[in-house]
Amino acid sequence: MSAKICYLGDDSLQGAASYLGGIMLHHGLAFDYVPTAEAPPASFTATPYSLYVVSDYYAATFGLAAMSHVARCVEHGSGLLMLGGWVSYYGQLGEYHVSPLAEVLPVVMEQSDDRRNSAQPCLINKKADHPILEGLPWDQPPGIGGFNAITPKPDATTLLTSVRFAVHRTSFVVPPLGGTSAGEDRLKPELRTTSQSCGEFQFTRGEESPLLVVGQHGRGRVAALATDVAPHWVGGFVDWGDRRITQNVAGGSIEIGNWYAKFFHNLLIWTGKL
Amino acid sequence: MSAKICYLGDDSLQGAASYLGGIMLHHGLAFDYVPTAEAPPASFTATPYSLYVVSDYYAATFGLAAMSHVARCVEHGSGLLMLGGWVSYYGQLGEYHVSPLAEVLPVVMEQSDDRRNSAQPCLINKKADHPILEGLPWDQPPGIGGFNAITPKPDATTLLTSVRFAVHRTSFVVPPLGGTSAGEDRLKPELRTTSQSCGEFQFTRGEESPLLVVGQHGRGRVAALATDVAPHWVGGFVDWGDRRITQNVAGGSIEIGNWYAKFFHNLLIWTGKL
Repeated sequence: MSAKICYLGDDSLQGAASYLGGIMLHHGLAFDYVPTAEAPPASFTATPYSLYVVSDYYAATFGLAAMSHVARCVEHGSGLLMLGGWVSYYGQLGEYHVSPLAEVLPVVMEQSDDRRNSAQPCLINKKADHPILEGLPWDQPPGIGGFNAITPKPDATTLLTSVRFAVHRTSFVVPPLGGTSAGEDRLKPELRTTSQSCGEFQFTRGEESPLLVVGQHGRGRVAALATDVAPHWVGGFVDWGDRRITQNVAGGSIEIGNWYAKFFHNLLIWTGKL
Repeated sequence: MSAKICYLGDDSLQGAASYLGGIMLHHGLAFDYVPTAEAPPASFTATPYSLYVVSDYYAATFGLAAMSHVARCVEHGSGLLMLGGWVSYYGQLGEYHVSPLAEVLPVVMEQSDDRRNSAQPCLINKKADHPILEGLPWDQPPGIGGFNAITPKPDATTLLTSVRFAVHRTSFVVPPLGGTSAGEDRLKPELRTTSQSCGEFQFTRGEESPLLVVGQHGRGRVAALATDVAPHWVGGFVDWGDRRITQNVAGGSIEIGNWYAKFFHNLLIWTGKL
């Protein structure tokens, strides 16, 4: 295998990086790895990679020169994939919204903290047919734990969104004897029309947000995934599958769902034209 | 603060242990910490702790003598709390089901791999009033990512369960022109009676499993939580709250939901009579 992928970010291959690293190992994709704590090595600009994957990697560590190099490589045909996380996109403190990658990525970033956590269900929603989504049962959608808020650029395509659901346990709604309770509001007829109950649980559809946006920049393909490949934002997505994949990684092993692994494999293959 | 709590398990206070460690720091609870990679120190049996917390800690590392010591301490009034994880209860490879703690904990463990991952929503369900659950909005239940399968002992009390939901995106159900599709089965009238749709998403209530079981052993209180305090099994629970708590921990900081933090604080306080 020759290394066609440069994977920047996450912690070591024993940590969060073991997820994407494990998927690439499982599918026989060679990659060079730059952990979050390290700047790109001197060799970074020697040869263009087919695909750059940026995942929870500090823009300040990345550096303007290396990001400008990536932008030029994409113009000439390399792929660029950004995965979500607390230091991806705007992130917690402002990372990529004013970087050279802002021009390249297919999304407009927020101007303030873009992190959205979801204590209640947040489900993946397929919006279009695409090679990245092929062969996967999107009619059985997995959940995620959170994402960065991003907006597709006008010429980009949104393939997946996330849909949040508010859940209320309706059995708490029984009013006390001789009185009324605030909970009664939850059974108002106008609310009944926008939400449905499932046993004691009432689900109300909420905000829909871009989750996977793809596009073209120069001769390269670009993709922006708003959620993380690793816990905690990956949520139940990491276990999505009808069988388990166990993959040895440096210092241990990971156990993941086969549909989750296939999705990320598809995403790498398409974006990098691998 | 004198250390009344002994916390065994998880990785270092920069890793998974930063969650429970951060909660204890936030609430001013002193604790001694034994990471998963280390056996209990020689001082372990010198003085009984008010509370032992065992969280993803290998039974083989714990050792029979130290576990027997904990069992005796609980008989004399100490608390014991086990948190879920891949090496808690039976776990991946068989840990505690034949240990001295099997007698003490308020649950019967499986005799084989008890790990249950949930790619789709798995929601927490309140079953009884109890000091551990007080002051928290269980009518807005958070989700979890997975749990160990455990069974309450006859004299124990189940305070929380988890309820799994199967979700189908029903807009995929439209049959092709002139034909029938397997998807049509999902709209059979008998299924309509047990599941409800929410926009394009149809939720069907599935398996309900014990999540928090409490009891008494000798003079001590015992509690078994089936899910993890940390990702990935903690799921959306870690973000459950109406405000964020940021807590400095060794080597960084954590950001969690205030209701999540209050739940674990309540759980420690009650089980350890703190």
